[in-house]
Amino acid sequence: MSLTFAAFVNGLTLVLVAAATARGAAVQGADPLPSWNATAPKKAILELVARATQADGADYVPPEDRLAVFDNDGTLWSEQPLYTQVHFTLDRVKALAPAHPEWKDDPAFRAAIDGDAAALAALPAGAVVKLAAAAQAGVTTEEFDAIVLEWLAKAKSPKYGRPYTELVYQPMLELLTYLRENGFKTYIVTGGGLEFVRPWARQVYGVPPEQVIGTVFGVKYELRDGKPVLVRQPDLVFVDDKEGKPAAIHAFTGKRPVAAFGNSDGDLEMLQWTAARSGPKLSLLVHHTDAAREAAYDRASKVGKLDKALDEATRSGWTVVDMKNDWKYVFPFELPKPRSVPISERWGGTILLTDLASLPEDARECPAGCLRDAAELEAVWKRVKPGEPVPAVDFKKDLVVFARNQVVYSPIYIAAVKWMDRGAEVVTSTSRNAAPLADKASIMLAVVPRADIDFVACRGRRHPVVK
Amino acid sequence: MSLTFAAFVNGLTLVLVAAATARGAAVQGADPLPSWNATAPKKAILELVARATQADGADYVPPEDRLAVFDNDGTLWSEQPLYTQVHFTLDRVKALAPAHPEWKDDPAFRAAIDGDAAALAALPAGAVVKLAAAAQAGVTTEEFDAIVLEWLAKAKSPKYGRPYTELVYQPMLELLTYLRENGFKTYIVTGGGLEFVRPWARQVYGVPPEQVIGTVFGVKYELRDGKPVLVRQPDLVFVDDKEGKPAAIHAFTGKRPVAAFGNSDGDLEMLQWTAARSGPKLSLLVHHTDAAREAAYDRASKVGKLDKALDEATRSGWTVVDMKNDWKYVFPFELPKPRSVPISERWGGTILLTDLASLPEDARECPAGCLRDAAELEAVWKRVKPGEPVPAVDFKKDLVVFARNQVVYSPIYIAAVKWMDRGAEVVTSTSRNAAPLADKASIMLAVVPRADIDFVACRGRRHPVVK
Repeated sequence: MSLTFAAFVNGLTLVLVAAATARGAAVQGADPLPSWNATAPKKAILELVARATQADGADYVPPEDRLAVFDNDGTLWSEQPLYTQVHFTLDRVKALAPAHPEWKDDPAFRAAIDGDAAALAALPAGAVVKLAAAAQAGVTTEEFDAIVLEWLAKAKSPKYGRPYTELVYQPMLELLTYLRENGFKTYIVTGGGLEFVRPWARQVYGVPPEQVIGTVFGVKYELRDGKPVLVRQPDLVFVDDKEGKPAAIHAFTGKRPVAAFGNSDGDLEMLQWTAARSGPKLSLLVHHTDAAREAAYDRASKVGKLDKALDEATRSGWTVVDMKNDWKYVFPFELPKPRSVPISERWGGTILLTDLASLPEDARECPAGCLRDAAELEAVWKRVKPGEPVPAVDFKKDLVVFARNQVVYSPIYIAAVKWMDRGAEVVTSTSRNAAPLADKASIMLAVVPRADIDFVACRGRRHPVVK
Repeated sequence: MSLTFAAFVNGLTLVLVAAATARGAAVQGADPLPSWNATAPKKAILELVARATQADGADYVPPEDRLAVFDNDGTLWSEQPLYTQVHFTLDRVKALAPAHPEWKDDPAFRAAIDGDAAALAALPAGAVVKLAAAAQAGVTTEEFDAIVLEWLAKAKSPKYGRPYTELVYQPMLELLTYLRENGFKTYIVTGGGLEFVRPWARQVYGVPPEQVIGTVFGVKYELRDGKPVLVRQPDLVFVDDKEGKPAAIHAFTGKRPVAAFGNSDGDLEMLQWTAARSGPKLSLLVHHTDAAREAAYDRASKVGKLDKALDEATRSGWTVVDMKNDWKYVFPFELPKPRSVPISERWGGTILLTDLASLPEDARECPAGCLRDAAELEAVWKRVKPGEPVPAVDFKKDLVVFARNQVVYSPIYIAAVKWMDRGAEVVTSTSRNAAPLADKASIMLAVVPRADIDFVACRGRRHPVVK
């Protein structure tokens, strides 16, 4: 159990690192939503945040009222061809079947155990709920958390051959982070099981358990071996779908959202309720239009049917994401990976703070940047290596990058130069022996090929390699 | 409506200011729980927080797991002789009665309308719920918020003749603040109506709406004049009492609390569930033992019955507050009010930062303090008013207090000296024209009678007036 859990967490970490690298200001510049194309939805999001956070503006929303709600299936992660929780339910019913011989006499259970897709597709909604109930009843809440995590660590989507937690939408991960960085509280409001989503929502979405709202099955307070536990029951207490969504948001938060994100008719009322807020607001639908990268479906789909909500979006001028055209990347695994650029030479030294003016003007305030020609190199070299001859660099072919201390003094080393998407980033390591920056900074210069590099990125600023 | 709301908010602000002054470090020293006597419960609270927050300790609890849950009636505010929400229900049923002639034929409604205490006391629980349901159904959630606030702004407790929001427990206000200052999320988990408590919990307790859990009545999503609203229904969806409390905490937060505070058998399961947590934890019962200041009741009481939970507290070694002996003050209105001390003379000037060493040693780091004898006055006077004769101060009768800039330079003025509980505090005003502190600070000295003053308080430090 602990091994698979560790593997699961590691898997998640990798996803998050990829996401962070992709959306990080360092490589992509200051764009907080790099996986969104510069089309209407991105503009609508940026405008909402600008209005809501402008302290002296007419549309200012105090931080405690900045609530953003997200549907999960089809909005934050993929739901086609089948909801992830249905896969979980089928696997769990199969695993539990040997202990339940009576299930063989029930058509729903028989279809699940046999993996009979046609029979499953024909089941009425009540039968599906009965299966979901059976998949989670009888265990304590803590045990169920572990069961969900263990399943997610092993299970792979038949369509993509990947863990389900990799099938999250990169643009939505960026959006969650962007909203939180602007003081929004991000909630998940899912028709799926509250306790199916909670165990991993923090690691995958950055959403803590108390900000996950979902469909609720009953629990029973019991003493087991003298210890109080909550045991999960098969009775459905609350269905968090359609008109249940605004009711649940109200019950959990007592607030009306500023922004709501959904993708199906199950989200209609939540989007309507948000749209009726006074002040700035955003109701956004993700329209699955991308058969090549994910799936294209709407009015005729059984899973994630989008019909009435699409009509209302058109009528009311809501924002509709056309996944194919508005999203640069769909899944984190599509992101370009950063590669290391070879470093041919390195020179370390120190520079007086009063000599920082010898750096190119655009890079004086930055701890890293580039020297684009022989004149720029010479100006710096004279301060860093006074008396030593300026090395010959072929600036047609190569480029000099530098990195220096900015806050504390500590010998600096350029460990690597990473390249992605035409931008380079200087990766440094410094010793732990740091002292406050007094009169001088440690600095290192490194020579790299300039092919493919348009700019050196540093703290959200781009230093172009051509003046 | 807006007038009464403003009056309500103002009333609340006064309560909070009083609370802040009473618990503020300035006058009371660094004690975060000044209204708690130095008995076992206070020690248990301080010890829990110390253990949970010690980063390298074995019992460290990460901030995201620091959950503290508080019952409301009888734990945060007074519930005797009758729950506040019952007063609200009776008032509201009376107000609505003219529109409901059919109520006259129902014994429960008739008792409520007639204010028949004996008949009301004899009602079965179901009838009380029926009244509560009638008092809140049919209006939108926004309208109900306004109705609750309007009622609270006008209503007064028949026993105390004060607004109900003044009948909160001062030691518990301090405890809420203290826990939050140590990274705990404080939740209210009340058997009362979720929406009866939410509208005012932030102002009175500092608890935002999303951290109030309570008994839930249904809502219905409707379009009224084309606008979506949630309309309150008479059906009871969830009773947040007894075994419902752990279930609700789980549903709302997905976490097990580190600390739980209750006062009656309705809190037993919540306290048990918390006590069974691994790691540091605190289950605390408030035992109402103070007939003189509030009320004395437990096993025989109909309201706030404390019987089984008291037995379990004894058996399991939980912390039990003996209100009479463990609480220095019960209500905020009992707190001593600070009074102004007359100032007989003031001298303003500047002092070089290099001359701050002329101040008494204990006050050199502080922006305020006192000069206790002629020698201490002379040492400072020579720096502030070089060449001017040292004024004659009768240090048997009087004391010199001072205040100075510490961060920015700005002419300083001692506006008042406040006294409470044997401590004095220097109240200053400064001009808005501030510049970074460079070579000198603005300083003012003031002469006050030393009678009743044991120390001058500043930033949690006490400067004694006798060396």
